[in-house]
Amino acid sequence: MRHAAKYDFEEQSGTQTTPRRKHIGSDDMTHPVHLGLVGMGTVGTGVVRVLQDSADHISRQAGRPIIVEHVVVQNPQKPRSIELPSDQLSSDMSQITGNPSISVVAVLLGGLEPARTICLDLLRSGKDLVTANKALLAEHGPELFHAAREAGRSIAFEAAIGGGIPIVAAISECLTGNRISSIRGILNGTSNFILTKMEQDGSAYQDVLALAQSEGYAEADPTMDVDGTDATQKLALLVHLAFGQWVPWASIPRFGLESVDQELLRFADELGCRIRVVADASRGDKTLSLRVGPALVRKGTPLAETQGAFNAVSVVGDAVGPLFFHGLGAGQMPTASAVVADIIGTVVGRSAITFQQASAVGMSAQSGTSIHGGQNPSFLRLHVADAPGVLADLTGILGAQGISIDSVIQHPAEKEQSGVPLIIMTHCCPTEAVDRAVDALNKNPAVRSPICCLPVINE
Amino acid sequence: MRHAAKYDFEEQSGTQTTPRRKHIGSDDMTHPVHLGLVGMGTVGTGVVRVLQDSADHISRQAGRPIIVEHVVVQNPQKPRSIELPSDQLSSDMSQITGNPSISVVAVLLGGLEPARTICLDLLRSGKDLVTANKALLAEHGPELFHAAREAGRSIAFEAAIGGGIPIVAAISECLTGNRISSIRGILNGTSNFILTKMEQDGSAYQDVLALAQSEGYAEADPTMDVDGTDATQKLALLVHLAFGQWVPWASIPRFGLESVDQELLRFADELGCRIRVVADASRGDKTLSLRVGPALVRKGTPLAETQGAFNAVSVVGDAVGPLFFHGLGAGQMPTASAVVADIIGTVVGRSAITFQQASAVGMSAQSGTSIHGGQNPSFLRLHVADAPGVLADLTGILGAQGISIDSVIQHPAEKEQSGVPLIIMTHCCPTEAVDRAVDALNKNPAVRSPICCLPVINE
Repeated sequence: MRHAAKYDFEEQSGTQTTPRRKHIGSDDMTHPVHLGLVGMGTVGTGVVRVLQDSADHISRQAGRPIIVEHVVVQNPQKPRSIELPSDQLSSDMSQITGNPSISVVAVLLGGLEPARTICLDLLRSGKDLVTANKALLAEHGPELFHAAREAGRSIAFEAAIGGGIPIVAAISECLTGNRISSIRGILNGTSNFILTKMEQDGSAYQDVLALAQSEGYAEADPTMDVDGTDATQKLALLVHLAFGQWVPWASIPRFGLESVDQELLRFADELGCRIRVVADASRGDKTLSLRVGPALVRKGTPLAETQGAFNAVSVVGDAVGPLFFHGLGAGQMPTASAVVADIIGTVVGRSAITFQQASAVGMSAQSGTSIHGGQNPSFLRLHVADAPGVLADLTGILGAQGISIDSVIQHPAEKEQSGVPLIIMTHCCPTEAVDRAVDALNKNPAVRSPICCLPVINE
Repeated sequence: MRHAAKYDFEEQSGTQTTPRRKHIGSDDMTHPVHLGLVGMGTVGTGVVRVLQDSADHISRQAGRPIIVEHVVVQNPQKPRSIELPSDQLSSDMSQITGNPSISVVAVLLGGLEPARTICLDLLRSGKDLVTANKALLAEHGPELFHAAREAGRSIAFEAAIGGGIPIVAAISECLTGNRISSIRGILNGTSNFILTKMEQDGSAYQDVLALAQSEGYAEADPTMDVDGTDATQKLALLVHLAFGQWVPWASIPRFGLESVDQELLRFADELGCRIRVVADASRGDKTLSLRVGPALVRKGTPLAETQGAFNAVSVVGDAVGPLFFHGLGAGQMPTASAVVADIIGTVVGRSAITFQQASAVGMSAQSGTSIHGGQNPSFLRLHVADAPGVLADLTGILGAQGISIDSVIQHPAEKEQSGVPLIIMTHCCPTEAVDRAVDALNKNPAVRSPICCLPVINE
């Protein structure tokens, strides 16, 4: 910490003397940094590849060589695409926790355990951490950040949100002069890949999911991606960074892709929109509006035009106005890019500063904030009985909740049994009122299948 | 510097002890930081406004209050929109250089002198600098950065490029694991505002320029914006950050808006493109391709869809792939956002680390790199005599330079005297070959007015 050892300003015969800072790359800083790695899956392999392939470049960036000292994996015998000397690879965590020459450890495991216990042990043994594990941080962030502060260590996690998009640094380092009012993003590449393919090819959800799995864009078990969990965990981390508050991710209203079918995509297209899974957070006076799920997004806006496995984040700050970021949100090398930048940032001392700064801001955040679903125009798709008086009945239910209607579209039914598709677009209204109206509508005997209700995002 | 005072790792009865880092906001860090400001124009006023209006927020971000200690301006008597106590405002630089309590100074003057001399004096008197002056850094960057290194001080300049877009941090902190292969951006909001207006309203350049001046989007003297100087200076800084090399900005091929007229915009539209002033840098093995000027950009690509006074930057790294940033590139508050983030970054010690790191990388960059104009498809607009054999003659000149033709469009002339407009689209070829062909074509008697030749950017 530079300011803890701040220079004394002595006035000496007109010239002020200031101790020169030590330069990165100066004599006492040329010894290598020894890195520990836990986990050697897709991301871990990418990190080792970058560290090996760009060794000279990275040692210039960090002011010293970065050497992979030891890698801990579950099964050291498993064949791997990158060869490591056998004494550098083990399943024994004490090879890292007990090695005082290792100062920085990248924990590249998924899931909650043993990742949580490993991180706590590493922090207590004096290691600075780098991780890409958003589930771990969203679930156990307060405990891990507290443990890091107690141990005087740092946790860097650029790779946990938006893959290679530097959104963590943007919020926690570059927008510090702003009060951020909203964050809106496409944070899950798998679901965006599926939606884009369904839109382009007219295929059914299950067929596209199978394609995504065969092309490596979706996991064998894609639940966390398609039910919105992954995007919601990332949003919870962004909320912590931007608004200084830990919101339990499971308390954020969350909707998956299950409601999206080709009929819905056609209606969206007809209304000049695309369907995207949007993670949305905005801050009011003492409220937070949070939601993750499919939404109708006006064509031509940057979020609507985010295609395939790309991620995108738009942030609004009071001074900077609207900022937009777009890049590969997942995949081996984009994620490795963020992990390696964090390793370098930790080696040069920047991560420690940012982590302490963010902790200080987080600890002083207002409490007592209530969470709402926000205000948006809504899109409602109903399948209704083709009978007189039905439209008047249903719109009356919306009116009773104070919801005014912007437009109605009715097309002939494709199949008799599912009723006539009816689209109702509302003016801007609170999510809670729409939820109540949808509950009441779903109970109406003229409504033949569960209503699909999506927010409409016009900018 | 954290690693200069790295902890000793002692093994004590199973538990390793690590000195805790001092926390931002802990007891010895609560004393305020005293800030000096030089210049109180649009940006300086914005900075003071943010520091005043968000004082609590900023003091949490920086771990301590940031107090404007003294502001130096040319004319302290001039009426200002923000009131400062008279003893805080003077035209006397020694009020800052001679005040040992001031550690950070934001230099918010435009132009080269006295900005250069003031910065050198401030560095020598031990101050860390923050500036938004891209002309100064593009012209005198090597001298100023050297002086900062000599004095053990830092220069932070996020606000010099892309206004509120955090592109400096992205390149110098977040993409450090990448070898960057290209940077392409819309870096001048004034010229983009003019182009967008010409495109939307069908107005002539001079009329739109007058509108831009009356609405505050263009300076009274807009030369540096419309002739490409401003974007070129920003590109030179980006090249330094991304490729570790100081390229004299005046050596970068640079073209202004003077060739853009409504006929050109109509042809671009017909070809599925928009015209944008693109600053382009890409790195080959031992070459740099650099150019700033109008280009045809394929509609639907992020750069083509960058409207009005917005800026945009797209960066490609070997690990991260393509990244895209979009935001307000100028204006009081977006620029103030970047300046304040740099002030906070300097106060917490992050800027010093990044500045030293960038210097170390820059000093070790390869020399002997040659500068080229790159390879692109080209768009050529000619006004030619309506006579037999002309097209064969002219396309023969292109063939002689090894340039192959992708398509030709000929429309009837609107005015007899300017000849028949003829559009030739070439396949991808080196800029140098196109330049030679254009020279030869301009000398051909069938060519009635100087040829307009623009690169075509399809992605």
